[in-house]
Amino acid sequence: MKDNSQKNENTLLSKIKSPKDLNKIKDLNKLCEEIREKLIEVISNNGGHLASNLGAVELTVALHKVFNDLEDKIVWDVSHQSYVHKMLTGRLEKIDTIRKENGISGFTNRKESTYDAFTQGHSSTSISSALGLACAKKINDETGYTVAVIGDGALTGGLAYEGLNNAGRFKKNFIIVLNDNQMSISKNVGAVARYLAAARIRPSYLKAKNIMEKVLNKTSIGIKMKDLMKYFKSVVKKVVNPNNIFEDMGFSYYGPIDGHNLNQLEKAFNIAKSLNKPTVVHVITTKGKGYKPAEENPGVYHGVSSFNAQEGVNFGSNSQTFSSEFGRTICKIAEKNPKICAITAAMTSGTGLKEFKNKYKNRFFDVGIAEEHAVTFAGGLAAGGMVPIVSVYSTFLQRSYDQIIHDVALQDLKVVFAVDRAGFTGEDGETHQGIFDVPFLNTIPEITIYSPSFTEEVEPMLNLAVNGSCLAAVRYPKGAEFKKPENFKYTGNSFDIYGDKTAETLIITYGRIFSNAFTAKKNLEELGIKTDVLKLNIIKPIDIEAVKNILKYKNVVFFEEAFKSGSVAEKLSSMLFENNFKGNYFIKAIDEGFVKHASVESQIKKFGLDPRGIQNYIIKKFYTD
Amino acid sequence: MKDNSQKNENTLLSKIKSPKDLNKIKDLNKLCEEIREKLIEVISNNGGHLASNLGAVELTVALHKVFNDLEDKIVWDVSHQSYVHKMLTGRLEKIDTIRKENGISGFTNRKESTYDAFTQGHSSTSISSALGLACAKKINDETGYTVAVIGDGALTGGLAYEGLNNAGRFKKNFIIVLNDNQMSISKNVGAVARYLAAARIRPSYLKAKNIMEKVLNKTSIGIKMKDLMKYFKSVVKKVVNPNNIFEDMGFSYYGPIDGHNLNQLEKAFNIAKSLNKPTVVHVITTKGKGYKPAEENPGVYHGVSSFNAQEGVNFGSNSQTFSSEFGRTICKIAEKNPKICAITAAMTSGTGLKEFKNKYKNRFFDVGIAEEHAVTFAGGLAAGGMVPIVSVYSTFLQRSYDQIIHDVALQDLKVVFAVDRAGFTGEDGETHQGIFDVPFLNTIPEITIYSPSFTEEVEPMLNLAVNGSCLAAVRYPKGAEFKKPENFKYTGNSFDIYGDKTAETLIITYGRIFSNAFTAKKNLEELGIKTDVLKLNIIKPIDIEAVKNILKYKNVVFFEEAFKSGSVAEKLSSMLFENNFKGNYFIKAIDEGFVKHASVESQIKKFGLDPRGIQNYIIKKFYTD
Repeated sequence: MKDNSQKNENTLLSKIKSPKDLNKIKDLNKLCEEIREKLIEVISNNGGHLASNLGAVELTVALHKVFNDLEDKIVWDVSHQSYVHKMLTGRLEKIDTIRKENGISGFTNRKESTYDAFTQGHSSTSISSALGLACAKKINDETGYTVAVIGDGALTGGLAYEGLNNAGRFKKNFIIVLNDNQMSISKNVGAVARYLAAARIRPSYLKAKNIMEKVLNKTSIGIKMKDLMKYFKSVVKKVVNPNNIFEDMGFSYYGPIDGHNLNQLEKAFNIAKSLNKPTVVHVITTKGKGYKPAEENPGVYHGVSSFNAQEGVNFGSNSQTFSSEFGRTICKIAEKNPKICAITAAMTSGTGLKEFKNKYKNRFFDVGIAEEHAVTFAGGLAAGGMVPIVSVYSTFLQRSYDQIIHDVALQDLKVVFAVDRAGFTGEDGETHQGIFDVPFLNTIPEITIYSPSFTEEVEPMLNLAVNGSCLAAVRYPKGAEFKKPENFKYTGNSFDIYGDKTAETLIITYGRIFSNAFTAKKNLEELGIKTDVLKLNIIKPIDIEAVKNILKYKNVVFFEEAFKSGSVAEKLSSMLFENNFKGNYFIKAIDEGFVKHASVESQIKKFGLDPRGIQNYIIKKFYTD
Repeated sequence: MKDNSQKNENTLLSKIKSPKDLNKIKDLNKLCEEIREKLIEVISNNGGHLASNLGAVELTVALHKVFNDLEDKIVWDVSHQSYVHKMLTGRLEKIDTIRKENGISGFTNRKESTYDAFTQGHSSTSISSALGLACAKKINDETGYTVAVIGDGALTGGLAYEGLNNAGRFKKNFIIVLNDNQMSISKNVGAVARYLAAARIRPSYLKAKNIMEKVLNKTSIGIKMKDLMKYFKSVVKKVVNPNNIFEDMGFSYYGPIDGHNLNQLEKAFNIAKSLNKPTVVHVITTKGKGYKPAEENPGVYHGVSSFNAQEGVNFGSNSQTFSSEFGRTICKIAEKNPKICAITAAMTSGTGLKEFKNKYKNRFFDVGIAEEHAVTFAGGLAAGGMVPIVSVYSTFLQRSYDQIIHDVALQDLKVVFAVDRAGFTGEDGETHQGIFDVPFLNTIPEITIYSPSFTEEVEPMLNLAVNGSCLAAVRYPKGAEFKKPENFKYTGNSFDIYGDKTAETLIITYGRIFSNAFTAKKNLEELGIKTDVLKLNIIKPIDIEAVKNILKYKNVVFFEEAFKSGSVAEKLSSMLFENNFKGNYFIKAIDEGFVKHASVESQIKKFGLDPRGIQNYIIKKFYTD
């Protein structure tokens, strides 16, 4: 690896102001080398998705060489692999700001560049959205191709299949590039994965076809055999082309080809353009390509925080997070309770389930990127007498809304949802914030929702959830807990009030914001303003005793790290009316639906949920004339 | 067709108290005949899913003959075809009560019978839930098979694919019966449908294999050819077995077989039991089998109201419904605006889109049962400059929650949702009530939600939605409007107040409940109680002017036909606090998450949303000492 401080001005990369400039460059392999250096430099500084971007360098260069982005449309599935695309489409100068506050996003974003045809962040959406773009072109009689670039992991999602099923009917100019890097975030699972694995080791379609034709023509029985073969019209194709699953669905198939060979890639894309029907180009790439630590541990380098590029990521770090505490706890519970099952959707490591996976193999299910199935499957397990715990990130659990209603709640089945990455998630930005789980889980009948503020609360709350009578969720944020008050002890109550209950002003909150509320309370006290703090441990249903305790306060403010519309605070307001509360009640929650990338700290500040924000709100609202 | 009044006591059917009794019956074809008669009798009286049940008679009898339901588990996808299953599992005596209040459900229901392994109603869930049951069996070391019965239409849903993808890994005792009746509710669409269509006309696997082996052995070149073929190990199988899509995914495949031939069915299921791996049995059935009008018009007889069994359904009826008004309006809008596209998910007829489909073929998209794709695809269309209108039933739109957030709202794309069957849906029962769309759409950033009370409001509201700047929903109920006040005129305002604004009590409502509120107001007036009625035309965002108008009232009650948790009424309560309202505020909404089957009228009464319920609530709350 070369010196990272190399100046941009002298590089081939710096000459690329738009994709058209690729035509001016003779040594594209050199360009790819420079791109890799830049990727490692930027991601080691900013954090980000290193392995997938390193794997997509040649693929991206070839796509932009062959397709005329703008007239043609390229849609990147998930789009964490779009850093190279950003470098080639006029954003090289901003690439150092990627994932940073006020910088460019770590995902494609329609608002950031006209080269970003669709905002992506969740998996398996590219085929459907690209098909929409292609159909719009067709209706409007516009020329140009539409390309969806999708990874093998994303193919396990049902939405991708629905897209394939509909795209197979489309007549032309629609190309799917299957970026097959042989894994999603966790190891890829399922029948499709096995299918692709088999495809990879066979010769590519055209190559095998040639071999077979040579064999047939050279043998004496060959000629006659060919006649017979006519009867079975599609035989040759079926035999030598292992990927007929796509052909079965109405696509031309081309591949597999080496995704790090620019010539092969360009040829393949040009052939795809020349065919007059929807086409799948199957490209094999290596995650982390060109950076040894990432090639060896692509899982670790999937999404990373900043690290030392020379030394690689230090993955001995053992800091306690909510996820790790969940992972420890579920093993402890499973040891005593043989009915406990764990289900995740391609997030074994991220959700802290590695130990469970190793210890309780027969009760562990990684279903791939298939959140809908995860929940319905859990419903089936519960109907069969098990106690399934589904651990999914908040933003992805949005996908299972109907399944939670129809396949769990409606059936009175006890499934526990361990909702990870609840609340702000920082640098991943607006596609990944966990700010909707509270609003949408609030609409689920009979669910009990626990919200720990500190890691020590994860175990008792998960125990309550597992031993409860109906479906439940335990939701907790990304990373570690905020500062814990001295002598804090979890009580096991559904709510707790901190203070002597004589203040006229009450702060209500839950989750990690309790830390900030508690600090604000102390700071306000120093300013002579006395407040009590009500910490909700169970946020749904709201304990009627909690409501009764609120009634006597003159001023009540609910500070909530969730989207306001549908929040616990909104629900509480209706309960306050029912109980004839006549004081003042205000809500400070996330009033913007989509929160841009920045640090979690900065996001919390922005919405006034930090200690200073909380105390200032109280002062301004009630103690300023 | 025989006399429907034939007494049950003399029939073979009456001898079946549990599936075991099938073994006592020699003439199973006679039994099937009796079942058909009973189906026609019951469904012509009660309404229900006639065509699919007539098509599944032999299939159900054979399944219960071969499998030992209870030890084995049968999961019926959607389960509108489970009437026969109900007759054979101890519910014959109650079958006359099906879909009626306090009667048995028109779908399988875990709470109704231990023979109902899972509650179903939404499509494409059976493979996932059955896999959960199968895995639970395995973990608990229990014997027995698990069978998922799924239609070809349901296979277009992504969840079914996620289930297949995961079930292909399962080791044994897992059987999928593909009940291929060549259509879903609307004509089946997509690559999978075409694939199955091709499969149907080819010889079945075993038959073709025999033919090929005979050909090979009889020809002189056959022997050598066989040697050569060894090199291409899987050739024979691939050629003669057209359904390798399932084999590709890890299943054994058996079929297609005649789904009305009991011997073939029994044989196939016994073979499936004997195989030691997950198996797909492909069964071809005819929707409406045995009742000519239904065979000829399976779409009409998919779900019917009561009808005259001798004459068949009168489908000349032209009563104006919200759906028909939507269908008329969207054509009118599309005529002037070439950007308008219509998207539905296998509900062309039910959503009123037949005329649009015929008139604007290139702007019409029936995506099959694939609600997630429908929305993401619409997002793509919008990004391509079109104005897509997605028309889906409220209960099924639950499936698109994440796509509405991630692929539409986040992107600032204008997609209009025409949410049909919003509110109570009557006899279909708890799996189909449209009572969650308001709560979950309430959590979508920036969405504008219109709620017409009368059909004449559909056109102006849809126009507003189409001409607005962001995503919008127009939600309306199943069927026709309720009684309209004399001289009613839609104003185009976001809200209207009926009354002279001098009352001390205000009734707030929206949608069809406005009719009832208006009647209640008149009735109360006759009792000397003066009220005003606030009708919300836009339910999100709530117009701040509406809130200001509310502030002066002493008593306010919100009557709402939606699940209470997350309702408009709850949201309004937080706005009332923000605006310092000090009066009384109460909410009367649907406080039970799942509402059993009954007439819509009865459901509205049950939750106190009929005129009498409204006036009694007001009297009791504010005018009784």
